[in-house]
Amino acid sequence: MNDPGFVVWFTGLSGSGKTTLGVVLEKELLKRNLRVQRLDGDIVRKSLTKDLGFSEEDRKKNIERITFVTRLLAKHGVATLVSFISPYISVRDNARKEVNEESAKFVEVFVKASVEECARRDVKGLYEKAFAGEIKNFTGVSHPYEEPPKSELVCDTENETVEESVLIILEYLEKEKIIPKS
Amino acid sequence: MNDPGFVVWFTGLSGSGKTTLGVVLEKELLKRNLRVQRLDGDIVRKSLTKDLGFSEEDRKKNIERITFVTRLLAKHGVATLVSFISPYISVRDNARKEVNEESAKFVEVFVKASVEECARRDVKGLYEKAFAGEIKNFTGVSHPYEEPPKSELVCDTENETVEESVLIILEYLEKEKIIPKS
Repeated sequence: MNDPGFVVWFTGLSGSGKTTLGVVLEKELLKRNLRVQRLDGDIVRKSLTKDLGFSEEDRKKNIERITFVTRLLAKHGVATLVSFISPYISVRDNARKEVNEESAKFVEVFVKASVEECARRDVKGLYEKAFAGEIKNFTGVSHPYEEPPKSELVCDTENETVEESVLIILEYLEKEKIIPKS
Repeated sequence: MNDPGFVVWFTGLSGSGKTTLGVVLEKELLKRNLRVQRLDGDIVRKSLTKDLGFSEEDRKKNIERITFVTRLLAKHGVATLVSFISPYISVRDNARKEVNEESAKFVEVFVKASVEECARRDVKGLYEKAFAGEIKNFTGVSHPYEEPPKSELVCDTENETVEESVLIILEYLEKEKIIPKS
């Protein structure tokens, strides 16, 4: 059995909506009877990446390990929904390359919201601490975020509802024949 | 789709035959049209665990990460064949617990060969260095190996051929209805 799955890779600032989109997309894909696995910080931090901080080196290691897992899941037929800030273009491109080596599609979704908007939401209270200098290397504040120059999709979560964004993703996946039409 | 896969976890000394058994078992399971993934040092050391050495702490971290990956693969229907020395009972038992939480079967296979026999084979030239004190924390020489008190299977690779050992495993998997009879 070698039918590969696919990867939807959400990238964007903390608070932009990556995990929220992943959760709702997961529900839709499960309705379509697919095998689905979400990966995000809450899921991996307990074991896979618990030794890692937020330096550039650690962020790269973090995504390297996530990429290893994502590649294996995609290889074995799982729709893998990955929600990490993943601020570096080179690291995301490597994830794409590895997934493609398993003949699985890689769909990069730029979850777009300005630092101001993310700070206004401040879901985890992190921006306040970052602006106060209590958290170092905070993406968008004291650490760079490299916007994707040509992601497959952009979800503008300042101007779209979650449902609208997920519909855009589902339509794309159908159009590209990554999932069958519902 | 939620049918789980299963895990065959090979544990034993370096050179006991864990990976060899995994490779041959993989071929047999692929013939039966299963999704199969092998995991061993050569596969994970390039990315997932490349920062780890052989101290007790690092060995535990190593298996913790392997367990994370194994659990996800088993959850999603993959026959996962894991070949690591994995010298600690507690760490192997935790892997079993995590895999069972996905309603997937965990089959521990003790790949049994004496230190003397493994040193005689010395496939990677490591025992010679370990006896000379050039490698520290070498399992069976300068680091403990906790034999499984009640593994599902024991493959005595000093007295069985690879084919005989794999046949024993296949028969067990059939008997336990983990795989269909061929």
